[in-house]
Amino acid sequence: MNDLRLGGLIAERSTIEVKGVTIGGKEIILMGGPCAVESSLQMSLSAETVKKAGGKILRGGVFKPRTSPYSFQGLGQEGLGYLLQAAKEQDLLCVTEVIDAPSLELVVDKVDIIQIGARNMQNFELLKLAGKINKPIILKRGLSATIGEWLLAAEYILASGNPQVILCERGIRTFEPSTRNTLDLSAVGVAKELSHLPVIVDPSHAAGRRDLISSLSKAAIAAGADGLLIETHPNPAEAVSDGPQSLTPEQFIQLAGELGVVAKSVKRAFTCGWKGDTLETLRTQIDRVDQSIIELLADRMQIVRKVGDQKRLDRVKDTVREKEVMLRLVHLATERELSPEIVKKIYPLIFEFGVQSQIKNKLAQDKEFEHRSFQ
Amino acid sequence: MNDLRLGGLIAERSTIEVKGVTIGGKEIILMGGPCAVESSLQMSLSAETVKKAGGKILRGGVFKPRTSPYSFQGLGQEGLGYLLQAAKEQDLLCVTEVIDAPSLELVVDKVDIIQIGARNMQNFELLKLAGKINKPIILKRGLSATIGEWLLAAEYILASGNPQVILCERGIRTFEPSTRNTLDLSAVGVAKELSHLPVIVDPSHAAGRRDLISSLSKAAIAAGADGLLIETHPNPAEAVSDGPQSLTPEQFIQLAGELGVVAKSVKRAFTCGWKGDTLETLRTQIDRVDQSIIELLADRMQIVRKVGDQKRLDRVKDTVREKEVMLRLVHLATERELSPEIVKKIYPLIFEFGVQSQIKNKLAQDKEFEHRSFQ
Amino acid sequence: MNDLRLGGLIAERSTIEVKGVTIGGKEIILMGGPCAVESSLQMSLSAETVKKAGGKILRGGVFKPRTSPYSFQGLGQEGLGYLLQAAKEQDLLCVTEVIDAPSLELVVDKVDIIQIGARNMQNFELLKLAGKINKPIILKRGLSATIGEWLLAAEYILASGNPQVILCERGIRTFEPSTRNTLDLSAVGVAKELSHLPVIVDPSHAAGRRDLISSLSKAAIAAGADGLLIETHPNPAEAVSDGPQSLTPEQFIQLAGELGVVAKSVKRAFTCGWKGDTLETLRTQIDRVDQSIIELLADRMQIVRKVGDQKRLDRVKDTVREKEVMLRLVHLATERELSPEIVKKIYPLIFEFGVQSQIKNKLAQDKEFEHRSFQ
Amino acid sequence: MNDLRLGGLIAERSTIEVKGVTIGGKEIILMGGPCAVESSLQMSLSAETVKKAGGKILRGGVFKPRTSPYSFQGLGQEGLGYLLQAAKEQDLLCVTEVIDAPSLELVVDKVDIIQIGARNMQNFELLKLAGKINKPIILKRGLSATIGEWLLAAEYILASGNPQVILCERGIRTFEPSTRNTLDLSAVGVAKELSHLPVIVDPSHAAGRRDLISSLSKAAIAAGADGLLIETHPNPAEAVSDGPQSLTPEQFIQLAGELGVVAKSVKRAFTCGWKGDTLETLRTQIDRVDQSIIELLADRMQIVRKVGDQKRLDRVKDTVREKEVMLRLVHLATERELSPEIVKKIYPLIFEFGVQSQIKNKLAQDKEFEHRSFQ
Repeated sequence: MNDLRLGGLIAERSTIEVKGVTIGGKEIILMGGPCAVESSLQMSLSAETVKKAGGKILRGGVFKPRTSPYSFQGLGQEGLGYLLQAAKEQDLLCVTEVIDAPSLELVVDKVDIIQIGARNMQNFELLKLAGKINKPIILKRGLSATIGEWLLAAEYILASGNPQVILCERGIRTFEPSTRNTLDLSAVGVAKELSHLPVIVDPSHAAGRRDLISSLSKAAIAAGADGLLIETHPNPAEAVSDGPQSLTPEQFIQLAGELGVVAKSVKRAFTCGWKGDTLETLRTQIDRVDQSIIELLADRMQIVRKVGDQKRLDRVKDTVREKEVMLRLVHLATERELSPEIVKKIYPLIFEFGVQSQIKNKLAQDKEFEHRSFQ
Repeated sequence: MNDLRLGGLIAERSTIEVKGVTIGGKEIILMGGPCAVESSLQMSLSAETVKKAGGKILRGGVFKPRTSPYSFQGLGQEGLGYLLQAAKEQDLLCVTEVIDAPSLELVVDKVDIIQIGARNMQNFELLKLAGKINKPIILKRGLSATIGEWLLAAEYILASGNPQVILCERGIRTFEPSTRNTLDLSAVGVAKELSHLPVIVDPSHAAGRRDLISSLSKAAIAAGADGLLIETHPNPAEAVSDGPQSLTPEQFIQLAGELGVVAKSVKRAFTCGWKGDTLETLRTQIDRVDQSIIELLADRMQIVRKVGDQKRLDRVKDTVREKEVMLRLVHLATERELSPEIVKKIYPLIFEFGVQSQIKNKLAQDKEFEHRSFQ
Repeated sequence: MNDLRLGGLIAERSTIEVKGVTIGGKEIILMGGPCAVESSLQMSLSAETVKKAGGKILRGGVFKPRTSPYSFQGLGQEGLGYLLQAAKEQDLLCVTEVIDAPSLELVVDKVDIIQIGARNMQNFELLKLAGKINKPIILKRGLSATIGEWLLAAEYILASGNPQVILCERGIRTFEPSTRNTLDLSAVGVAKELSHLPVIVDPSHAAGRRDLISSLSKAAIAAGADGLLIETHPNPAEAVSDGPQSLTPEQFIQLAGELGVVAKSVKRAFTCGWKGDTLETLRTQIDRVDQSIIELLADRMQIVRKVGDQKRLDRVKDTVREKEVMLRLVHLATERELSPEIVKKIYPLIFEFGVQSQIKNKLAQDKEFEHRSFQ
Repeated sequence: MNDLRLGGLIAERSTIEVKGVTIGGKEIILMGGPCAVESSLQMSLSAETVKKAGGKILRGGVFKPRTSPYSFQGLGQEGLGYLLQAAKEQDLLCVTEVIDAPSLELVVDKVDIIQIGARNMQNFELLKLAGKINKPIILKRGLSATIGEWLLAAEYILASGNPQVILCERGIRTFEPSTRNTLDLSAVGVAKELSHLPVIVDPSHAAGRRDLISSLSKAAIAAGADGLLIETHPNPAEAVSDGPQSLTPEQFIQLAGELGVVAKSVKRAFTCGWKGDTLETLRTQIDRVDQSIIELLADRMQIVRKVGDQKRLDRVKDTVREKEVMLRLVHLATERELSPEIVKKIYPLIFEFGVQSQIKNKLAQDKEFEHRSFQ
């Protein structure tokens, strides 16, 4: 990998900024949409789904590299119009695949991000052209490309002058027949150890089946991916391509609703969007938050009791520590735009319950100890 | 897959109980230890590490199937003694690999779980023997076995009379050279869709390199795995086998400390063990919990403000809803062994802050609206 | 491959002798028979086919390692009887697969060669047992074994004391779905560069389809294989296993009839057997030989004319060279048990025709030259 | 494979004619040359080698798709000149790879055959362009393309209007590390069963190592390939790319010298060219032919003796059969431009020796029979 002159690991990970969206930062970026652009209505509905789910980028292919010459080859310029219009309606960025010089020329000034597909990962002439434009490039890993070859393909773009490359793992070809390809989540870690570029994951093309998208998306985030590229279609059963792997709008939104907590668990962030919240959906969200708060309070009390086990009864209350904690939490609340007043009001109560709980616990233990001693 | 007569999907997922440890339940089961048992001390230290990390099961190979006849072949019966002793010291269960009828006979009454390795996945005679004993079997997926073949191998054990099979994904052979094998996390989901058996993941053998274990372990949990089998060694640099993929004790414990929150993010549980907590480590845990509580309170306030946007100023306070919420949370607290009193004390405060925040927000909006209207 | 202490390349290639059959010598050894032994009649018919085709070794599985526990598992001891009886009837050697210690014990004193199948290639305990017997072992390459791993598996047998190992390439697992496995004929050359052991090829399991067996068998010989292991069944349509890849008796015999000339083309030998030749089949063979002789005579005359082009007209006849050639050919004839008298009679005629042809040719060229010069 | 509307199997196999060279006919077509065009001298020497070996087509890349952007990318137009000049010098056809629309445009009117490389096999836009020209296209199989995908890629060219597609198997990506790729010779048979197109084989890129080229080339012919594409370089050690897999001129010519007999063994033809034969090399060829004739005569006598075993002593001579044979051979000789006179002179001698041999044999057998009877 000596040839990773520009793509190789450097002091800081690269982030790519497009119209206010940062790829490679703390936030997980969700991209969604259908495999192929089919109609104006289909794209409008898809964009609505993506927006509701908190997605930032709308995808849709208008030039489709298809295995058979007799398969649908994409709507071309007409489809591009539908994609752009739908993205604009929902204030989303948009990405589409290019397959050669003319298609690149057609879309370069119109879309926000350009995708080079797995089949063209080693179409070096296309990579060089992609290196001469000023738009971020999503470079999908070839079906049987090693990670080294993938990074060198990225290097072609970088070496031609475009530093905005986003790597996308989308499954490799193996002997396993139950999935279309085998999603290689190790590739996320390996690519990040060799390169400073952002890495996203496309579970849809890897799995080729709808039922695995949810678990693989969460796994991708846990593995360190910076974003997800997921297929969704208003009516997968009627999709002209890749229907079986496309999520329904409901599935897409539900999945998005579950990603935030996974992102948080690995110190990343994702916010499910849901523009046009209803009172009902907002209350469901509050209920979920409340449940987590209660669980955390329960966890806290358990740990606090263990702390108590290590202290003398008369040392259970530790006001110095309480003050320190309060100071820190007030500071944290301010950072998160939470009124410090609420912290100041509820934490003394939480401390007090902790102390009471420790004392009760110690007394119970003492009693049990005595009880045993007398037997 | 018509031949999955016993292993096929049924109404409920199977759980396997061994001396109080439940595999396949809500809790993620962590298994750890060295590839090969080398000495009494090595095993004692490994067991201590596993225990501290919250692991439930100690692994260690005493019969090693090695590619070359001139590689270390395991300590056999002597090593078994070290494994058993170390597990006993830390009150852990233990698992070891068998490679033929004699090795199975030797260990069957001594260890808690028996492992059949990837190279023996289609050693059908061994599978049949494993089907005649009354111990859980961890069945590793063969290097190039399809998921269908793996499940049929499990079926051999089941059909011979032993229902306690735990499937273990450990990477498949592909063209990619940067990892020893390619961890196929789709296999977790596929195996669970076809079979009721628990599925665990061994990221160590898949990656063959230490630096990917953390991200792959988290990804495995996010993908739905029921447990992890991770190699750790008191001194990986001196391990007789698989040193480069073994975590140091510190790395193992640190990783375990990060798994709980990932498990929780997909509605599973894992508790990092740390027998012999110090005041310091407990306080670090409390601090982490407090931070999460504050973040959740901040999230809550944001959603509450959105709710406010949808209500008339005089309808902001909704006591009916508050009562309902309180009732639910009190119930939940009781379930989690948290005193309901604390909920009853702090939630009214949280409600009140929410209402105040909604009102402030609405007034600010009105002002802005007026301001704009007059321009 | 430092661990190939016994299997590594040495000055001479090893040959393995079993009751007069030499594996690894000049002769290509054909082994044939059904996947599974089914009945006495089936084996008798199979043995007859193998014998007619010039095969030396009858194969037939009595212990079948099957992917599903509910598939036919072999006739065991009963089947062994059928195999032995059929081999005896046709004076063939026989080979069968063993799958564990008991099956090895059962067959070791009865069959001539023992096979260890692909799924057991890394069943190291079985390899060690195979190393302790005094029978040749056919070691099939594992489905996803590298050549290095295969040779190290052989090393297990060698290191345990049995030097008679025959390597068998039988296809590896790849992504290609049109064949059951992908026959890796490079493996023949690579294994022979790293090891002194004989290497045979099983095209039947590799292809999994009858129609490719002929071309792959010839390719295997051209690639340097020392033998072929080919499935044939009296009635493939009714075979209990592997019917689609089994040749009919007619196809097997026809293929064998085409192998001799391929073997000869790479300086190897194979004689299609056909015990009980009919006058008709013998005459067909003579016709084929005659056709080749005529073609060679035609080739000879063409080269001889080119030689003539390089000589002065009066130097065309070169009696010294003729004597040398005659001497050599007489010697060669004696070696091949051909009467030298026939050579002494016909070669002067061949020489003479050659000279006449050269002269005629030269005169024609001169005429053409003059013709052109005068234009 | 319903989409093989134009490429699918039809009544007759297609042949492709280019300036008197027929690809897909009885003759095996040898193509050779360096991976990359480097200089005028290198190409002249390569062309000389190819010509001497009986090759018909000179290859040499001037646009090189290289994994790294920092590797040599080809000499472009300058290199094209060297290739054309060298081919012209030796009266060879030439082939070069194109990588995009501009490179195709540059070479289309100059070279005889155009190659689309493995990495561009699914560059559908390039395939469509290749379908609009009137030059044969060599379409290499992608590294991880199934045979079905490869044929559909060919269908793109056919469907765009160019019927002259030559398929080229060049190895697929597998887990085996000892060869660069795994040559899939089954693909020759499978492609020919699904399609009427000619199929050639490139063993150089598959093996990636010089030592396997000879055996794989022969295996390819035995497997049914219509031609070979083999790398040769005047000085492989100094080649800018693919040196380790390039044959030296001597190796290339020697290999070619061995291909004819292999081709003949599967009813195909190949003539090693050797323009500028020396007396010595011609005599070596004659010696080889003579050796084959003697061996065939020996074979003939063996079969003739078996025929004798089946006849009464007084019926050994069968003049009717002899006349028939003679008639056929005379006819055959005429076809092959061999003087029938020689056949008429030597065959009576061969018949006579056959008869004598039968008689001697029968008498010996009788004696032995009597001898045994009296015991």
